[in-house]
Amino acid sequence: MLLNADVGESFGVWSMGRDAEVMPWVDQANIACGFHASDPLTMQKTVQLALQFDVSIGAHPAYPDLLGFGRRSLSVSDAECRALIQYQVGALQAICRAEGGQVDYVKPHGALYNDMMANPALLEQVMAAVSALNQHSDTPLALMLLSRPDNQPAQQMAQQFDLPLIFEAFADRAYTADGQLMSRQQSGAVYHQPEQILAQARSLAHTRQVQTPQGMLSLQADTLCVHGDNPESVLTLQAIYQALRS
Amino acid sequence: MLLNADVGESFGVWSMGRDAEVMPWVDQANIACGFHASDPLTMQKTVQLALQFDVSIGAHPAYPDLLGFGRRSLSVSDAECRALIQYQVGALQAICRAEGGQVDYVKPHGALYNDMMANPALLEQVMAAVSALNQHSDTPLALMLLSRPDNQPAQQMAQQFDLPLIFEAFADRAYTADGQLMSRQQSGAVYHQPEQILAQARSLAHTRQVQTPQGMLSLQADTLCVHGDNPESVLTLQAIYQALRS
Amino acid sequence: MLLNADVGESFGVWSMGRDAEVMPWVDQANIACGFHASDPLTMQKTVQLALQFDVSIGAHPAYPDLLGFGRRSLSVSDAECRALIQYQVGALQAICRAEGGQVDYVKPHGALYNDMMANPALLEQVMAAVSALNQHSDTPLALMLLSRPDNQPAQQMAQQFDLPLIFEAFADRAYTADGQLMSRQQSGAVYHQPEQILAQARSLAHTRQVQTPQGMLSLQADTLCVHGDNPESVLTLQAIYQALRS
Amino acid sequence: MLLNADVGESFGVWSMGRDAEVMPWVDQANIACGFHASDPLTMQKTVQLALQFDVSIGAHPAYPDLLGFGRRSLSVSDAECRALIQYQVGALQAICRAEGGQVDYVKPHGALYNDMMANPALLEQVMAAVSALNQHSDTPLALMLLSRPDNQPAQQMAQQFDLPLIFEAFADRAYTADGQLMSRQQSGAVYHQPEQILAQARSLAHTRQVQTPQGMLSLQADTLCVHGDNPESVLTLQAIYQALRS
Repeated sequence: MLLNADVGESFGVWSMGRDAEVMPWVDQANIACGFHASDPLTMQKTVQLALQFDVSIGAHPAYPDLLGFGRRSLSVSDAECRALIQYQVGALQAICRAEGGQVDYVKPHGALYNDMMANPALLEQVMAAVSALNQHSDTPLALMLLSRPDNQPAQQMAQQFDLPLIFEAFADRAYTADGQLMSRQQSGAVYHQPEQILAQARSLAHTRQVQTPQGMLSLQADTLCVHGDNPESVLTLQAIYQALRS
Repeated sequence: MLLNADVGESFGVWSMGRDAEVMPWVDQANIACGFHASDPLTMQKTVQLALQFDVSIGAHPAYPDLLGFGRRSLSVSDAECRALIQYQVGALQAICRAEGGQVDYVKPHGALYNDMMANPALLEQVMAAVSALNQHSDTPLALMLLSRPDNQPAQQMAQQFDLPLIFEAFADRAYTADGQLMSRQQSGAVYHQPEQILAQARSLAHTRQVQTPQGMLSLQADTLCVHGDNPESVLTLQAIYQALRS
Repeated sequence: MLLNADVGESFGVWSMGRDAEVMPWVDQANIACGFHASDPLTMQKTVQLALQFDVSIGAHPAYPDLLGFGRRSLSVSDAECRALIQYQVGALQAICRAEGGQVDYVKPHGALYNDMMANPALLEQVMAAVSALNQHSDTPLALMLLSRPDNQPAQQMAQQFDLPLIFEAFADRAYTADGQLMSRQQSGAVYHQPEQILAQARSLAHTRQVQTPQGMLSLQADTLCVHGDNPESVLTLQAIYQALRS
Repeated sequence: MLLNADVGESFGVWSMGRDAEVMPWVDQANIACGFHASDPLTMQKTVQLALQFDVSIGAHPAYPDLLGFGRRSLSVSDAECRALIQYQVGALQAICRAEGGQVDYVKPHGALYNDMMANPALLEQVMAAVSALNQHSDTPLALMLLSRPDNQPAQQMAQQFDLPLIFEAFADRAYTADGQLMSRQQSGAVYHQPEQILAQARSLAHTRQVQTPQGMLSLQADTLCVHGDNPESVLTLQAIYQALRS
């Protein structure tokens, strides 16, 4: 079970996240690409940090909405969806290449991620966008998305695009009985107790199961999404790291 | 002698330029990358148009200043300069790749272009930015810049970066006695008479010379920068195209 | 029956609309405030033009979405809704004051307008935002909104805010049987024939009625929204102007 | 001697400064207006905080450069300079009015401030911009600017515009022999020792003099610019507050 975290979400003079403290403990860095956060210089520094710790680099594209941090849905046409993803992924690819690295995968951010998981037609555009970048490439980009009890539909769609998938799960989010993430609007949707987060991480990693209101549910995930916004979350991240290695 | 034009400078609902009328008559399309103009969808459409007419594609990166159309100088650090160029070039490369094409060269836009020509330290950063993208590439990007009476300094700098150069000249701009472009502030700096523009195009193409207040001056150029903002300039462009083919 | 038009929708170097040709024929100018279009200098020029033709000035605030021209819905909190309207209205008020004029009313733009008409809770925030600017003012701002067969609910809400209302109707849009604007997605939703537009303008002005698929429907409007995007629409505008004066 | 601080410089999800800790100790709050920092909602919250502590509110307009935090010079025409100042001031005025307050003064930010102090022609445009907002106003806006050994030229210019001035000095910046702020590029330009900052604050407040490499220099100031970026600077601010009250 790998660990991935959203990083590189500073913007200009504004700082966000504890990237330098997070990077040693994760396997995959989802790097913002300038549409919901970040800017070219911040991307350059974040890529350098990821390479320093030998962390796999993912592009973290979003709707164009700095003010809303990419958390608001925005209506986009199919062509616009593909173009905005390719734009952001390509920008990060170039900065990576210049620094001697490469982008390994794409994980949409915020509202784009949620919309993609809720809307198969949008997911298809995301897949089309990424797979179009894989033509004639020796190192194809994968798409990281949310693991659900039944990942078959996503896998079948991805096969049409010859697109590798990476499924992620959350150690700090409550799951509903049918294996969806509980809405953040509901109380109890986000775990704050390190013990609870650790327990869910262990369960997902070792038994491929997650607790729901109606008992344990099978959930296949390749990676856990972790956070490093504050000192507490960094400590929890380190605990998860050690728990999964032990 | 090739012809290049700035294209893809619309933004969202706002249209600029007559790209569809320009594309059949040019060899090289300098495509805006979202910092002074354009957006992902506009870039996608512009790339499709260029590929349709088999026009070589160049990235046209700029300072981040949509409101000022990239025409205002902006202080950037060395690292920031490289990052903003790589970001924009990479974004266009990805969109090109998705459409089955590739970016062949980079031509900085507006104030970034002027600053680069006036400031060797900045030119060096631009070259470093582009050459870093050429590592392990079979089809290295070239840098398009302004031809001057003595191109040796630029060529020597480019050699250090193993960077191909493309020199451009202007058919519709007056040149000073020492072979610089006359400032747009001065009257007569921009030619509007088709005959005058055509004559300078022919001179640059056939004799590698340009008229200055103190007589003809030798100027080596690979390509002429042309414009297609309005019906008149498109007609002039067609006339130049035919004059250089005849 | 007055005529109102959206103007001042250029942005930086990008031009939109034929404001100078529209201004002589309208009574009310809805001036963009920088969030979906325009910028401070464009606003200054547009205000000067409106004052020159003695046209009443309205602020035309929008969601913050230049790329989407304010046509995409964006989730905003109540406080955010009020703040973004007040910000834009205040910006235009200051520019008007500096030029010797004043803002008379507020007409939300695009998706904000549509969302406000569809969602009474949002309309209430819009009214709260505008009325808060009217405290201790000798010349209170009015709110311009869409006339519907029953304007009572809007009027009652406005009374609570002591807010004057201006109801508008469209001469070039088809109305549904229940007096709503037909969705632009449907064919026939927008009239392009000058005769058809003129007939609807006359009907709205002289009989306060509009044609629907199920016969004439009563619709009370104070002003007609007209357009001046191209030479044809300017001609139609002039014809409407003359028809309503005759 | 009053105390003023730049506040309200968060943007969207990005937080900056310790406004809630600063506000109780200052007399004047320079509130960012969305061009170098802030957004409508942040402005609304900052105004509410200032009103809660009965702090005088100033608009803090800047060049349009979020990415550069308004610290980079940007070429603007005279009309553009006036329009961008009026736009930002008006936006804050409206939000203040809605919250039951008012804007008392204008203090340009960052590069706009520096350029205005270095360039009398730009200062004149700033004064023209602000004074144009004072027409028919019972509570005219003042302009806050840097005190220099000879404030006569600025005062004479302001008289032509009937514009009140507020002169500020810095307790934490080294001054040159001729009474200018030492460039931040030079070592020692910014004081970090609380004792040194306190001593300069006392000197400026009580003897109207400031230490320079060539002895004490007379400097008339109405207000001291203070900072609250981190816990240390908040403590220093409180110490200055108490020193000036004792």
